[in-house]
Amino acid sequence: MKKYRCVVAYDGTDYAGFQIQPRARTIQSTLQEAFFKRLQTIIPIKGASRTDSGVHALGQVIHFQTDKVENLSRFLYQINSILPHSIRILSIEEVSPSFHSRYDAKKKTYYYYLSKEPLLPFDRLYRVVVPRQLDIMKMQEGAYHVIGKHDFRSFAQKAEQGCAKSNPVKTIYRFDFIPDEKGCRVEIEGNGFLNKMVRNLMGTLFDIGMGKIPSQSMRTILEACDRRQAGQTAPAHGLFLAKVDY
Amino acid sequence: MKKYRCVVAYDGTDYAGFQIQPRARTIQSTLQEAFFKRLQTIIPIKGASRTDSGVHALGQVIHFQTDKVENLSRFLYQINSILPHSIRILSIEEVSPSFHSRYDAKKKTYYYYLSKEPLLPFDRLYRVVVPRQLDIMKMQEGAYHVIGKHDFRSFAQKAEQGCAKSNPVKTIYRFDFIPDEKGCRVEIEGNGFLNKMVRNLMGTLFDIGMGKIPSQSMRTILEACDRRQAGQTAPAHGLFLAKVDY
Repeated sequence: MKKYRCVVAYDGTDYAGFQIQPRARTIQSTLQEAFFKRLQTIIPIKGASRTDSGVHALGQVIHFQTDKVENLSRFLYQINSILPHSIRILSIEEVSPSFHSRYDAKKKTYYYYLSKEPLLPFDRLYRVVVPRQLDIMKMQEGAYHVIGKHDFRSFAQKAEQGCAKSNPVKTIYRFDFIPDEKGCRVEIEGNGFLNKMVRNLMGTLFDIGMGKIPSQSMRTILEACDRRQAGQTAPAHGLFLAKVDY
Repeated sequence: MKKYRCVVAYDGTDYAGFQIQPRARTIQSTLQEAFFKRLQTIIPIKGASRTDSGVHALGQVIHFQTDKVENLSRFLYQINSILPHSIRILSIEEVSPSFHSRYDAKKKTYYYYLSKEPLLPFDRLYRVVVPRQLDIMKMQEGAYHVIGKHDFRSFAQKAEQGCAKSNPVKTIYRFDFIPDEKGCRVEIEGNGFLNKMVRNLMGTLFDIGMGKIPSQSMRTILEACDRRQAGQTAPAHGLFLAKVDY
């Protein structure tokens, strides 16, 4: 069977995350339903990242196998006609039979969008409003402390903290706060991320930006390897899976 | 009583237009409910433009009278806390007792957003997707024919066509197709607009862009003063009331 890779964008607002779950509308199940309608056979779809409920994607990558696709651009057009407008497949290409969207990923880039009041209504589902006095420079200072290879257990999801389910050592290559016309786009690039790690990093940086803790405490929290030291999980709707590199 | 003017932005997706209607959620009723919650008295709110169901606003203008507001910036903050995030009051100022948001409006500006495939999911509620082969230059040519002072009955809402409810002579100052990063923003500036006029103009220009009729037919249709000569009403969700000048 031939193997294909697709880049997918979605608005996560109305979905219970990427991964299939019983009795919930997810990105993966909606994709599989559309593929079933078009190909009349169940095609398992694997994604590079299991984004959480409410998280968006500009460049999620999926793969699947089938021998039933002939004309790729026609297939792309047809699948997009079946899918709801909140999910768009942006590209499709044939890949080697050994390709795996998740295990072969070398680098992932996430964006987190912030906006100072007033937030226009059109941005309410895609940006997190922050108080006017939030100190973005201090947040950037804090972010510098986590660049590099570290044990990120302090920023893992609570449930994951004790168990050795996934390797907690990850490398962050870049963590930039870039001003844009509506506020700020935070760009985080790394070789991998623990469940909720970006949102836990952002939540802790919010505490720094609000002056609750100094920017150097980012290092102390990191070194503690204890989730209880870090701040709250930042809201899902500011987060976008922007790109996966192989 | 003191009179106030506010600039209001809203996402019209989930509203049955601006104007109060029985058994429907409208912008006007949602604003009045919020004002009632804050001021404990019914405050009638008048708007510059009765935008249709699904139409958005970046700069709708409203006015109202009350003696119960003291600190304007605090009132703005409180009202925005009560309002749903799909409606934001952007500014408030005291105006002369004779001011009327609708009758004193000198100029209105509308935007209409177009996008060629692929439309990202985040734009699906705010842009109209057009076929790749749509000829924007031809649409701009057609639009030039309606600039100036004309009887716009050909582009009025069907119901309005026969009756002399509002003066069908309007002046369009500007009608520009401006390329943007996602496609095109159409900017239309005039001293006033008939009900559905912008969307009927756009629908007719779509016929021109698709090559169904030549761009000069815009003039023939205009001169016919007959709604049946013009094209279909373009979708509501691409349209934004951008600005009202006094």
